[in-house]
Amino acid sequence: MSHDLDVTGVGNAIVDVLANAPDDQLVRLGLHKGSMTLIDAAAADRLYAQMAPAVEISGGSVANSMAGIASLGGTAGYIGKVKRDQLGQVFSHDIRAAGVEFASKPLQDGPSTARCLILVTPDGQRTMSTYLGACVELGPEDIDEALIARSKVVYLEGYLWDPPRAKEAMLKAANLAHKHGRRVALSLSDAFCVDRHRAEFKRLIDDHVDILFANESEARSLTETDGFDAALAALRGRAELVVVTRGEQGAVVLAGDQHESVRAEPVARVVDTTGAGDLFAAGFLHGYTHGAAPGVALRMGAVCAAEIISHVGARPSVPLAKLLVERGL
Amino acid sequence: MSHDLDVTGVGNAIVDVLANAPDDQLVRLGLHKGSMTLIDAAAADRLYAQMAPAVEISGGSVANSMAGIASLGGTAGYIGKVKRDQLGQVFSHDIRAAGVEFASKPLQDGPSTARCLILVTPDGQRTMSTYLGACVELGPEDIDEALIARSKVVYLEGYLWDPPRAKEAMLKAANLAHKHGRRVALSLSDAFCVDRHRAEFKRLIDDHVDILFANESEARSLTETDGFDAALAALRGRAELVVVTRGEQGAVVLAGDQHESVRAEPVARVVDTTGAGDLFAAGFLHGYTHGAAPGVALRMGAVCAAEIISHVGARPSVPLAKLLVERGL
Repeated sequence: MSHDLDVTGVGNAIVDVLANAPDDQLVRLGLHKGSMTLIDAAAADRLYAQMAPAVEISGGSVANSMAGIASLGGTAGYIGKVKRDQLGQVFSHDIRAAGVEFASKPLQDGPSTARCLILVTPDGQRTMSTYLGACVELGPEDIDEALIARSKVVYLEGYLWDPPRAKEAMLKAANLAHKHGRRVALSLSDAFCVDRHRAEFKRLIDDHVDILFANESEARSLTETDGFDAALAALRGRAELVVVTRGEQGAVVLAGDQHESVRAEPVARVVDTTGAGDLFAAGFLHGYTHGAAPGVALRMGAVCAAEIISHVGARPSVPLAKLLVERGL
Repeated sequence: MSHDLDVTGVGNAIVDVLANAPDDQLVRLGLHKGSMTLIDAAAADRLYAQMAPAVEISGGSVANSMAGIASLGGTAGYIGKVKRDQLGQVFSHDIRAAGVEFASKPLQDGPSTARCLILVTPDGQRTMSTYLGACVELGPEDIDEALIARSKVVYLEGYLWDPPRAKEAMLKAANLAHKHGRRVALSLSDAFCVDRHRAEFKRLIDDHVDILFANESEARSLTETDGFDAALAALRGRAELVVVTRGEQGAVVLAGDQHESVRAEPVARVVDTTGAGDLFAAGFLHGYTHGAAPGVALRMGAVCAAEIISHVGARPSVPLAKLLVERGL
């Protein structure tokens, strides 16, 4: 079978609800800046009632990455669970309109489409509280073998370890990918998520993952090390490629005993860091699936991340393919 | 009874769905740039399926104005009809979070919360297709006499003449306002809307309206004149204050036999003109309800309009009160 898709992502299908928030509001709400917290429906309603006027934009970490792949001119599929409700229609419309193949069956009954309530502080950082809703119903039955077989890379998000049956779905996707000679990529998603699932994540990586994405705090959490260099040393060889992002300090890729690094792209003003890691992964995977060397793929990731943090929301607002061309990539 | 509210608005409660669109997409879809077209649910679904990835932001012309009044540090109320669905929750959350008093009962059954599908072309112009949904159920029973009595000004939108029972609601609101010694303001909303209802609008203005807002094309449509000066001459004396906006050519206010004009505020880049007229009205009404002379109120309108066209969406993204202070207003 031909692999006519570059990447298929499996993730939590979420609509982001973004509002500005002063720093002291985070303190009052007991939220830890930059973190992602899981909340139930009642807590989501309580938090929403405290939030400033908001904007709704489709989100979901790996879904953002797939929209990025499509915007780069690549081909992408997506597997995730929404409900047949208004926000589910919004999510489904947006990912398809972005050019991503998305055919997962929506829930007819039960919890509503997932929402991520995002407080954006004046420094552009985002603090997320996620109501998983319909995502808790994602299971192995949603993993379409034909779709996996058609994709050069299957990209999974660590966040999927939170809903009960999604980890079975992830393992099925990873096993199918390798059965068909494809590659498996994983994002560690969030340092607190790594904290919750460290041992299982290590086993997952060792058994299944070819390309690992982490930011510095996730890398340190997984490896239980204190410094960046120690975390890098502990990750070396853990996967064929290990990509670690460091915000404004750029990013590093470990490939066997080689390593390459890239500086962050300059940005006039950081408006909202939501999606920075997701779009970094999109750029890197686009390069990888088109035969770019790891260092070049890293630069593509940096360009995409810079675009996404310069505006509100985690989906590209301009065609990313054009940005790469402008930078000679 | 004290008037503890500056302005209460009555309007169609709508969530905007904004997407970028190249000019040739408007041609393909048979849409007239800059216009507002009413569509049914099936047409809304068809158009949405053609749209690029979108952003959802609360809208509704007069609701935008009320959010503007609150952002200016004024006090505002709002009357409008949503359904008890996810987009209705979004609308209700956003207007309350903006600081606007909003207690209209949501529909339990029937059509869903209204959506305005907005295509934003590269020149920043917006072309709107509105599914009125729950708004068609707004009626005189929704007009709260106590709320009207508490407000210095009641602000109505011409768009309310489209849903069947809303005009009864408008007339009730206007009559109650005058019964309590308050002022009535009206926006003509849209040149095509004026075309649909010209004779009734003229009667409404003559019988009930103290402050009239129109843009140039609406003014020409109402007066069936060809040029701007002819339209102004025909509008003079039609209401105590007549405010006519002209986009980048600024605005004019007619007050008896006096008139004042203002230039448009400079804007670095026009991103999305959605809400320009709504926020112009907010600035003017804020000045008016705080005793500003018509020329000063006009400048306040121009400052607010400039803020709203510099970003996506028709609700303020920064506190407008601060902008006025920065400009010595």
